[in-house]
Amino acid sequence: MYNHSELKEVIDKAIVNLSYNTEAEKLIDPVKYVLSIGGKRLRPVLALMACNLFSDKIDEAIMPATGLEVFHNFTLVHDDIMDQALLRRNFQTVHNKWNTSQAILSGDVMAFIANECFLQAPANSLLKVFRVFNKAAIEVCTGQQLDMDYEKATIVTQKEYLRMIELKTAVLFAASAKTGAIIGGADDKDADLLYEYGKNLGLAFQLQDDLLDIYGDVKVFGKILGGDIVVNKKTFPYINAIERAEGTQLKELQKLFSERDTDPDVKVKEVINIYDQLNIKAITENFASKYINLAFEFLDKVGIDQKRKCEMVHMANSLIGRDR
Amino acid sequence: MYNHSELKEVIDKAIVNLSYNTEAEKLIDPVKYVLSIGGKRLRPVLALMACNLFSDKIDEAIMPATGLEVFHNFTLVHDDIMDQALLRRNFQTVHNKWNTSQAILSGDVMAFIANECFLQAPANSLLKVFRVFNKAAIEVCTGQQLDMDYEKATIVTQKEYLRMIELKTAVLFAASAKTGAIIGGADDKDADLLYEYGKNLGLAFQLQDDLLDIYGDVKVFGKILGGDIVVNKKTFPYINAIERAEGTQLKELQKLFSERDTDPDVKVKEVINIYDQLNIKAITENFASKYINLAFEFLDKVGIDQKRKCEMVHMANSLIGRDR
Repeated sequence: MYNHSELKEVIDKAIVNLSYNTEAEKLIDPVKYVLSIGGKRLRPVLALMACNLFSDKIDEAIMPATGLEVFHNFTLVHDDIMDQALLRRNFQTVHNKWNTSQAILSGDVMAFIANECFLQAPANSLLKVFRVFNKAAIEVCTGQQLDMDYEKATIVTQKEYLRMIELKTAVLFAASAKTGAIIGGADDKDADLLYEYGKNLGLAFQLQDDLLDIYGDVKVFGKILGGDIVVNKKTFPYINAIERAEGTQLKELQKLFSERDTDPDVKVKEVINIYDQLNIKAITENFASKYINLAFEFLDKVGIDQKRKCEMVHMANSLIGRDR
Repeated sequence: MYNHSELKEVIDKAIVNLSYNTEAEKLIDPVKYVLSIGGKRLRPVLALMACNLFSDKIDEAIMPATGLEVFHNFTLVHDDIMDQALLRRNFQTVHNKWNTSQAILSGDVMAFIANECFLQAPANSLLKVFRVFNKAAIEVCTGQQLDMDYEKATIVTQKEYLRMIELKTAVLFAASAKTGAIIGGADDKDADLLYEYGKNLGLAFQLQDDLLDIYGDVKVFGKILGGDIVVNKKTFPYINAIERAEGTQLKELQKLFSERDTDPDVKVKEVINIYDQLNIKAITENFASKYINLAFEFLDKVGIDQKRKCEMVHMANSLIGRDR
């Protein structure tokens, strides 16, 4: 069996070896750029790992797995335009390095390059995995829409927020695991269990990401810290803080999150101060842990030798920093 | 056999009956809007017509044909952002009616709705038609890139321009005809002949569109007349005018096409005046006619009873106004 870093290497190589229609080089330059500036490759690694659970041969899963990474990066390129984000993985975002039109168009072509990768799935599972992928793709767009809607909403409940990140982030983890499982030869029951495993992993991942925006190491995180706070984003930490805050603390938090002109450094510092008083870090971590435990419950039920599941367990634990 | 207007009705109905994931209504509203404001449905009609050449049953081609129309409208939504176009089919463009972020995201989801339509192709031809479609999709993006590149280029040759519109416009006509043919049961040779028929039809269509921008009826055209001239777009008429103009005429044309601040009405009038002196309308029409004749050559070779081809002949002729 392959370990996480071996699988990441397989994916990195597959991405480097992607072939493009280069008749218009300017179209492809941003594609190569965004795929070359790193990233953890979690989704394709998860797909290969799920395939490897059921089969010692992972070759046939490589192209669809690569397609999942290309699709994910397509969403980043377009989301970064919508969020006016300047930095991604410590590099300039595509619309910032080129321009908005270029980012739209190079993003678009990535969606079809992802299709091209899926069209190279083995014939006996192609239709099945393409359906899984495409359903997830539509859900990811739906999640991004809810995310934009919630920016303008006065109140976002925890339930609404969790559903939004399920769509925007978790279903692609779910689809990745399921895609790999199907190609590896899993039956429907096991493929669905791995979908649920991936979904819960994705939910935990996003909550962890919400925390990294506040407490992360800027070099590792690759984005500007406190970015969510500066733009008044209603993340899991914020929603929980608003629910728990009382009196002057509540008023102060509401005031900070209604402002756009405050000095960003001061604002971030004051918000974190309130989060700390309310124990938001531990609350969020506990919630993420709950999802990881749920993921384990689904993984447990997958009908293969428990020993084959070690890398999957390891991946889940590492996502919430349990084994780092 | 079905005639053109019957096929358009079939497509209009299929578009109205499209089902969406409506968990985020704001995502889908612009999709419904852009698909409801008309359009000639040429690509899906062409697909159904090609299917109907080989089979009396066209049901199985309806969803992929619909996918071609959804894809086409996806490109319009995104192109209109890049071109900053305010009007399309006499209605506000999506980014103008909503905003750029909404147009990016609702456009994105249309790409995956198009996939969803193709995933409903009959099992025995699904992979084949999806490959035809996806290759065209990547080429359309490539064509749009060349179009943007040529905006900044000092000189664009006729050859470059024709290749650009082949990619941006003609290959989708080609893929539409081929998709329908494959689902109708055409062999590879006939499917390829219909691809070439569609491609030449698409080239003629774009040249005609270049003329409509100058000489069209604004109510029928649905865009502002002279729009290409105002933004100094190097269309087929322009490229031919520059090649043919001499002396003061050439200088005047070059001057007009280097300006952005001239009164648009004056500029359009002066450019058209030069085009008229150089007989550009007839030259362009002749070129379009050449492509239509080429399309007929390919259609002729398709191995079915010539009588079945009448609607296809009619469609080609009507595109260049021969039978209106």
